[in-house]
Amino acid sequence: VGGLVARVLKFLEKAWALGVSEPKKVIHGIKVGIALSLVSLFYYMRPLHDGVGGNAMWAVLTVVVVFEYTVGATLSKSLNRAAGTFLAGSLGIGVQWMASQSGEKLEPIILGISVFVLAAAATFSRFMPPVKARFDYGAMIFILTFSLVSVSGYRVEKLFEMAHHRLSTIAIGTSLCTLISMLVSPVWAGDELHRLIHRNMEKLAESLEGCVAEYFEDNQSGNPSEEDNSKKAQAYKCVLNSKATEESMANFARWEPAHGPFNFLHPWKEYLKIGALLRNCACCIEALGGRLNSEMQEAGHLKGYFRDASMAVCSHSCNVLRELSMSVKTMTNSSKLGASVAEMNSALQELQNALKSLPTQLNLHQPLPNKSTENKSAARKDSAPPLMGVIPLATLVSLLTEIAARIEETVDG
Amino acid sequence: VGGLVARVLKFLEKAWALGVSEPKKVIHGIKVGIALSLVSLFYYMRPLHDGVGGNAMWAVLTVVVVFEYTVGATLSKSLNRAAGTFLAGSLGIGVQWMASQSGEKLEPIILGISVFVLAAAATFSRFMPPVKARFDYGAMIFILTFSLVSVSGYRVEKLFEMAHHRLSTIAIGTSLCTLISMLVSPVWAGDELHRLIHRNMEKLAESLEGCVAEYFEDNQSGNPSEEDNSKKAQAYKCVLNSKATEESMANFARWEPAHGPFNFLHPWKEYLKIGALLRNCACCIEALGGRLNSEMQEAGHLKGYFRDASMAVCSHSCNVLRELSMSVKTMTNSSKLGASVAEMNSALQELQNALKSLPTQLNLHQPLPNKSTENKSAARKDSAPPLMGVIPLATLVSLLTEIAARIEETVDG
Repeated sequence: VGGLVARVLKFLEKAWALGVSEPKKVIHGIKVGIALSLVSLFYYMRPLHDGVGGNAMWAVLTVVVVFEYTVGATLSKSLNRAAGTFLAGSLGIGVQWMASQSGEKLEPIILGISVFVLAAAATFSRFMPPVKARFDYGAMIFILTFSLVSVSGYRVEKLFEMAHHRLSTIAIGTSLCTLISMLVSPVWAGDELHRLIHRNMEKLAESLEGCVAEYFEDNQSGNPSEEDNSKKAQAYKCVLNSKATEESMANFARWEPAHGPFNFLHPWKEYLKIGALLRNCACCIEALGGRLNSEMQEAGHLKGYFRDASMAVCSHSCNVLRELSMSVKTMTNSSKLGASVAEMNSALQELQNALKSLPTQLNLHQPLPNKSTENKSAARKDSAPPLMGVIPLATLVSLLTEIAARIEETVDG
Repeated sequence: VGGLVARVLKFLEKAWALGVSEPKKVIHGIKVGIALSLVSLFYYMRPLHDGVGGNAMWAVLTVVVVFEYTVGATLSKSLNRAAGTFLAGSLGIGVQWMASQSGEKLEPIILGISVFVLAAAATFSRFMPPVKARFDYGAMIFILTFSLVSVSGYRVEKLFEMAHHRLSTIAIGTSLCTLISMLVSPVWAGDELHRLIHRNMEKLAESLEGCVAEYFEDNQSGNPSEEDNSKKAQAYKCVLNSKATEESMANFARWEPAHGPFNFLHPWKEYLKIGALLRNCACCIEALGGRLNSEMQEAGHLKGYFRDASMAVCSHSCNVLRELSMSVKTMTNSSKLGASVAEMNSALQELQNALKSLPTQLNLHQPLPNKSTENKSAARKDSAPPLMGVIPLATLVSLLTEIAARIEETVDG
């Protein structure tokens, strides 16, 4: 029992922490609560005439099922629900009428076959990527409504009345949800996507900084800034895993009306492209980080030689990323961006020059260069680790440059 | 109109292609069709006594909502639905009884507040990661049932009868779904996860091969094998994006009873660890691929020098990956695996030696090494591009070795 209590307490603690860090989620809970109590009380006042199965139920059910975190998701589910119900309802009434015309024996066969065929086809269509992305819920509602209508066994006149009731309750439920989600501290999928993208850029910059700082720091561990750096260096992981969120947000954002700085036909797909480029970049940081960590032990004396050039490249690329992030955030074309990219490129060039002149430097340290190849190869051994550490960095930075150039093209506000 | 017809035809064509490539999805559609016609006809035979709102509806609704692609997902939804309904039903009846004892004026207030508080809390709890992963659907059903019960306005005796009916229809619906999904050509989430992991290993091997072959191939483009290689080199992308699928599969697999070679408490979490390592590896391939492509143009004359060593490392690491994939597939500890890893390591060592002896070779080509530093640095310039191309490869391979070692530990069958 003590263990259970401890687990419950831990759960509540975590819930509290989540609520404090993301108050929007608490507000969402409250919004759902308001919508449900409103619709419940509305129907409680005029008691449910035909039992729990009555029409009130559909309004409550609609609110519970349709109310999602973002406005776009709520709108998309509402429209899916309405369209699915309407389509399946009309088709169901048609089939029902056909079945009733064809005699008592054939009726259940026709109904059974039609339910089977439509349910199988609609279920299969949910696996198709375009349907899955946008009409998954609609297809489910279609199957549901069609089966309900064809099983109901009512005559067609009564069906019309029922269809009318059901559609009106769904309309009440969905419009209540949409209104509350749009009016009470709305969470726009477009906003979230926008914020996700520019935060991811900042995270990449942070990660890159942390990763490189960690490498060039003195190896005497235990100082707090080192832990800080390795924590920073992990920031890119969120970027790697954000694909699914980005895609669903972009899908929902399409349904949203104009809000804030975004118009109705804002090019949301561009965000996906930028997101893919950022993930690409995060991949490079991951590869770099793994490499740097494994090289950590064998820090050669040449580390210091590359330190300044590498740090310069790193800080300049972080500048570019931060500049980009600002430019995306404010949706303006930053004039500093071009200058930052140029600075980054020149820093990169310097690093490459340092790399190329390395053997010369090495030879100067060795009094008799061709005396023995053994000696040479030992010297190479010393120089190899920093080379290996630096080259992925150069790789990363060149990728960054490419990315920066491409993002410049795509985001015009 | 012509455009619409063309789009519909294209959609059908794609659907056909999907059906041919993954017949299991077609079978799933047919299974849902069977389940729905069965439950529909069952209730059609004994006409719905109290309208569409009656109990039959709940059985149909349950089948539509609960029947998922994999057995694990169906089981998880069924249990969630049953548990959510039962919990919320008992709580709702309790609250209803309390409200009815407290007088007519207080009743709607108590009901409204309780719906508000529970709906808000349950909605918020759905954002908590552990709830979201396993009880998301249950929490939704909890909110739904609780609101329905507390709005219903029935007396407690009638509620008991209704609760009994509703639970029995849900039991019929869920058991029908579970039976059909388990007996008619079942799709086990565990199987899917298992297959996903070992296929991803094969894809990585393919990708690595394609990527390196593309680099070392003659630059005369247009030959079919080159296109083939670049197509192969893209295979790692699926690996990068498979995180969400893996996690949901592992979640569903937990609910599944023993099947095939898997026991009930099979360590599904190990698959997630391997998956993460594979993604790590895919990241390296992505970085490598990007690097190789940008270096493609400036192929130095030294490319040939590294060709054999690099190709050897690549083919040995592919061997390790394929061996691993086989070993995961058959769930045995392959005896060849250790030997392959050793081969890969020695090939890697050779490549590194080649790298270290490079300056020596360069110096031998230059008759007077210390004549001018300018000359030296020019020579370096020539050697730099292949160095840059090869070092990420070495990075990749060392990562591969690490990964191979870690996978060996984790998969014991």
